[in-house]
Order: sequence, then C-alpha cells, then structure tokens
Amino acid sequence: MKIAIIGCGAAGGTAAQFARKTARDAEIVLYDGEGYGQYSKCALPYVVRGMMESDRIVEFSPEWFRRQRIEYREERVDAVDMEARVIEGSEESYDAIIVATGAMPASPFPAEGAYFLRTMEDAIKIREEAKKARDIIIIGAGLIGMELAESFHEMGLEVKILEYMSSILPAMVDGDIASHIRKNIDVDIETGCRVEAVEDGVVIADEEYRADMVVVATGNRPMVVKESGVMDVNMKCEAGMDGIYAAGDCTSITDFFGRKINVGLGSIAARQGRTAGINAAGGNEEMLPPVLSRTTRIFGMEIAAVGLLEREAKGSISAKYSGKDLPHYMEGKSIVVKVVADGDGKILGCQAVGSGAAAIVDRMAVAIYNEMNVREMARMENAYAPVVAPTFDALSIACGMIERKLK
Amino acid sequence: MKIAIIGCGAAGGTAAQFARKTARDAEIVLYDGEGYGQYSKCALPYVVRGMMESDRIVEFSPEWFRRQRIEYREERVDAVDMEARVIEGSEESYDAIIVATGAMPASPFPAEGAYFLRTMEDAIKIREEAKKARDIIIIGAGLIGMELAESFHEMGLEVKILEYMSSILPAMVDGDIASHIRKNIDVDIETGCRVEAVEDGVVIADEEYRADMVVVATGNRPMVVKESGVMDVNMKCEAGMDGIYAAGDCTSITDFFGRKINVGLGSIAARQGRTAGINAAGGNEEMLPPVLSRTTRIFGMEIAAVGLLEREAKGSISAKYSGKDLPHYMEGKSIVVKVVADGDGKILGCQAVGSGAAAIVDRMAVAIYNEMNVREMARMENAYAPVVAPTFDALSIACGMIERKLK
Repeated sequence: MKIAIIGCGAAGGTAAQFARKTARDAEIVLYDGEGYGQYSKCALPYVVRGMMESDRIVEFSPEWFRRQRIEYREERVDAVDMEARVIEGSEESYDAIIVATGAMPASPFPAEGAYFLRTMEDAIKIREEAKKARDIIIIGAGLIGMELAESFHEMGLEVKILEYMSSILPAMVDGDIASHIRKNIDVDIETGCRVEAVEDGVVIADEEYRADMVVVATGNRPMVVKESGVMDVNMKCEAGMDGIYAAGDCTSITDFFGRKINVGLGSIAARQGRTAGINAAGGNEEMLPPVLSRTTRIFGMEIAAVGLLEREAKGSISAKYSGKDLPHYMEGKSIVVKVVADGDGKILGCQAVGSGAAAIVDRMAVAIYNEMNVREMARMENAYAPVVAPTFDALSIACGMIERKLK
Repeated sequence: MKIAIIGCGAAGGTAAQFARKTARDAEIVLYDGEGYGQYSKCALPYVVRGMMESDRIVEFSPEWFRRQRIEYREERVDAVDMEARVIEGSEESYDAIIVATGAMPASPFPAEGAYFLRTMEDAIKIREEAKKARDIIIIGAGLIGMELAESFHEMGLEVKILEYMSSILPAMVDGDIASHIRKNIDVDIETGCRVEAVEDGVVIADEEYRADMVVVATGNRPMVVKESGVMDVNMKCEAGMDGIYAAGDCTSITDFFGRKINVGLGSIAARQGRTAGINAAGGNEEMLPPVLSRTTRIFGMEIAAVGLLEREAKGSISAKYSGKDLPHYMEGKSIVVKVVADGDGKILGCQAVGSGAAAIVDRMAVAIYNEMNVREMARMENAYAPVVAPTFDALSIACGMIERKLK
C-alpha cells in the first residue's frame, strides 16, 4: 500500500503519523513545500514576539518523520490527477492520497509592500522588520491580527488595528463580548474601517494611515491543488473519489449545526488529519461533527467560544453573567460567560472571557454535543472548594438566567 | 403559608433564600443554633490558617436574612413532630418543614482533649491554640484533614498525619493518584495507622505519638432531629411525609450510579437546599442525581474527581495520562488525568491532579451525566491555542488510552 500526503501542517503531519500507526508496512510519502517538517502555525505570532526561537515550534522534524519510515520530500505539489491518483511532476501513482495543502493569507484589496503571516519564513521576516520599526498598522482584528497586535505591543511598537467589521474578533465572539474585550486592550483600534489599498506603508481607507510597517491579517483562502478546488469532505475525510482524502484548511466540512464551512482551526485540522490518516491506511475512523471550540489569550485575557454566536442563531435567547471564579470571600479573578440557546432552551453556543474561559467552553462543547438544555446545565454540579470554584459557578448561573427568560 | 427551616448551613441558608424567591408572601422561619447566619464551612481550614478573618466567610448574615423578611432565630431545634409538622419547644406548626441540620465530626475512638473542626467557633479556637503549639497530629487524611495539614504547615507547625486507610484522600481518589499527590506533600504521613484512642496529646496506635495538639478529622455523622434519623430524600428533597423536606449532610440520597449515599459536599448541599426551598414554597423543582464532583487545592496542587473510583467500579477499565497543560514548545504545567470506564467504555469517573483539574472534572461530569463513551470523548474537540491548551488535551488522550485497551 502506497499513501501520499500533500502538506505537512497540523492536518498533513498528523495524517502521516496516524497512517503509519495504522499500517505498519505501508509506503508513506509526505510532501512538504516548506521543509521544516510539522510546526505549529498557531505559534507564529509568538515567534514574531520572540517568546521562543523559530525552531522550537517544530513539533516533528523531517528527521522524525524519516525515523518513522515516512518518506519526507521537501517538494511542493501543484496538481494531482484525482481519478488516477497520480501526483503531477513525480508521475507516481498511489493507493490513497491525502490532500492537506492548508490555506494562504488572502487580501480583499491590493496590498503592495504589506506583510502576511502564514509561514515560518513570514514570521522570521516580520520579526526582523518589526525590530527596526517604530509603528505598525494591522489590518484585520481576527485571531491572528489580535495575537500579532499583542506581539508588536510587547516589542514596544506603536500599534494601530483597522477592522472592517463593527467589532473585533468578529468570527469568534459577538459584539457585546468584543466590547468587553476591547476595553481591556490598550492599543488603538478602529472598527468599521474599509481599507481600499495598501501602498508601501500607506493604508488608503476613509482617511490615509501611515506606518513603518503594515501587516494584513484579513483571513485565509484555502490552498488548492490544481483543478481540485476546495475539497468537500465527510466525517471520514473522504473527498468523494476512491482513495482521495482531504484534511485541514483546504477542506469544507459540515459542522454540528449543519452548516457547510471552511474551519481554519488547528484543533479541527489535527482531528481531520488523524481521521484521514487512519482511513487512508485502511482503518475505519469517523470524527465528530465540529462544534467549533476556539480560544486565545491576548493582553492578559483568556478568550474562548464554542458553537453559534448569537447573531448566527436566528430566534436565539442569550444571557451574560459577569462574576468571579471563586467565592466572594476569596480573591477571585473575573470571568464573563455568555450562553446562547434556542427558543426551547437547547444550548447552541457559549463565549467566555477571563479565568478558565477555555475550560468553560470545553465543558459547553460536551453539553452542545449532547444537545443539552439550559435547564439541565443550570442544575449540573460543578466541583466546589473555596480555593478552586464557587458553589454555583458562572456557567450554571448564566444557564439559569436563560431558563428564567424562557418562563 | 408558613415554612420552617432547621439549620443555616449551605443547605438551610440556600433553602431559605429560594423559599423566599418562590413565595414572596410566605412566612419563613430560619432556625440557626450557631448565630452567625450562613457561612462557608468549607472555608474553615482557611480561617484556621488566618487567610481571612472569620467574619469574612459569612455569606449571608442574620441581618441579611431579616432584610429578606426571613425570621432568623438563633435557636437550636432538637426534635420535630414530623406528622403534625410541629417544632418541639416553640410548639409552632408549619405547612412545610425543611430539615437541614447538617453533620457533626465523629470519632471512631475515644478522643479526650482532641480538637474537631466543624463550626466557626471550632476554627477560632483551633487557630488560637495552634499559634501556641509547635507540633500537631492530624488523625484522618481526608479533605478536611489534608486542608488542615496545609494550614498548620503554613503556620510553621510540625505536622504529622495518621490515616487508617492505605492511602490519603481515600474517599476522593484511588490509591495510585493518592501516591502521586503524596509525593508532592512535605509533611509526615502514616497510612494504615489504626488509632485506638487519644488521651490529652497522646495518640495510642501501634505505637504512641505525642504532640502539643491533636485534631481528629475522621469524618462526620449526620446530625438528626430527634426520632427522624438520617432523612432519605428524593430528587425533589421530599422526605416521604407531607410537607417534610430535607437537604444537606443530614440526608441520604440516591446518586447517579444508583447508590444510596450520605454526600457531605457543599455543592450538593446547596443544590438540595435550592430544591427543598423551592418545593417547600409551592414550586416544582427537581435536582439532577449527583455525579459527585469534588475538588480541593492542597500544597500547591489542584485535585479533583467525579463519579466512581476505580475500586468502586467492579470490572472497570482505567487509564492514566501524565502530561502538560500546554503544547510542548510552551512552558506548561503538569496535569495527571485518570479516567474510569465500564467494560463497554461508558465513562464512570475521572480523577485529576494539577493545572485545570477541577475544570477537567466539570467537563467529565457533563460526559458522565450524558452516559458518554470514551470513544466519543477521545474525539471531542477541545479549544486549542498555543498559550491556552494543546491540540489534543490530557482528557482526550486518557480516553483514547482506554479505547485502545478495549480493542
């Protein structure tokens, strides 16, 4: 059995590992256009700020893959004959091909002289340039934009963020939660700002902005191998043709809520990679439909969300609770929890900012997956101890608030 | 409508509040033998060490209850005529009575001159004596014993712990997890130690131990009003007689696993109190069967557990994973997770020590409640970001380990 994996990000690298675990004797070829092996793209903003050296974020090196008897080829694949399962250029044919080509930054406007962050080389280049700069404009207040803003702020640059939407982190949280986050960020942010073009340090919008550097972080578009387009996959990561699988940011997938989406989350890419790797190697693996758990920590705040935003769920009911993570007699830290439910109280989503935000979201992911109602979650136990958590924690209180609204 | 609530702990105090919310015009009498109002008994070990003044842990004062038009009486109730719903002494009759008398420390051996911790006065007295002592023996390595051990250790006393069972925290975690915890505690612990008696600073066991102070923390027995005995209640906190409810440590209850138990957890007492208060006031409230989430933080370790221990679940399969709470390229903190499942992989319990232990257990409580299988939990998403959590977190890995054992 001969398996080709195209791409070595979270999806491709994980696929290679699980293909090897599943079929000890398969011939596995891993094509990587970059040459670093599998590294954490999500960690690039931290390489930019110098939190760690770039080689530290390499999770599995080319040598590591070779030790697993995975043939690692530093080679970019541009086209695949899906019917014949032949990779163009090498003209080799395979029993199974996993397409895991990822995504590349995309700019909706001309962006001459602007920087984009997607690869290790981008991060290294941006870091070197930023060391020489005094001020910087980031276009896009999504996850990458905000994580980079923190990086440049920590490096001592004057940072301005321009965002087209009316609130920051628009794909991650609702506007009310975004406002709460924004209050705690001391860099200049302009929302509702439509950029027309970038021309060598000048950003042309309603007005013109100038800075030593401009970074565009307006999102990614899937990287596709020629003629395949974005690859639509099922929960087995099958792409609709015999022996063809796909995983990661180059795919579209049906989420838990029945929406066809491009995910763009490392957690899902890795889970798709595992699924694709096992199945390409003859196993029988099925992943769960994504509930879209997502998190970051910026400017000292842990931020997390899962499921649908209030604005994505028509006819939904929401409640937001602001409190502490410990009983009132202790020195607790702040936590804000917003829960979104449908008209019957079925939980659809959750957003949290503050102490334990990601853990709250991980708990709600399980609740959403089990189609739990706010009535049940308001009554669920939470582990209580004065130095760990209050008797009724923020999540159960927020669910109880929705229950009362439903009455 | 006239409601009596006997006891003002987490159960009684919470019951009074929810009775008031449910029936705005009801006459509510709250009997409290202590006189402080509702305070956190779980916080007493922290009062002992002087982390806060004793009055700080009062959550709702007598005056607070009176402002809610709840008649707070500093009065101990010893007997109740359940049939007639009459409280002995006052000879007043009520439409509903909620028994929430709690529990008191119990010693299985004569314990002359030893200290027990249950009330605010106990905590104040123990603190004052401990300030004068150089060394102390704690009998019992349960939650209270271990939290007190940390308190005395922080106060500079030489601490020795004697435990009858073969491991510490025996009701909370299995022996293997207890061993891991014990390695990180630098006070002297003797397990498998059968105490025969305490006589004024001398502990008589296989050998004799002496210290300036001896504290007995071998568990509690329910406090009962005369002739009622331990009160067996259902999920509505009904005690089997018209208008009689009970809540908290004085009750026995059927847990999620079908076992009849005395709980002794503040989180459950508060939830029972809420249920009893609403129902006594004419509402219709039902709590969820307890999955027994429990936590503490001792000697710098967060410890948490939910559901059945491995030794409580015959024919169960377990797996234990030790890792970090962040990806390997970050400076993560340690986390140990043990998962217990039945022979089909259905999740029965979870124990965790380290960073985020309580949150892991809160997530598993939801999984247990939904009768989830390790196969599903191994595939559940967790929110991932380099600075927050790894792509596949400790809990999903531990569940995957059981899945492989099942194959």
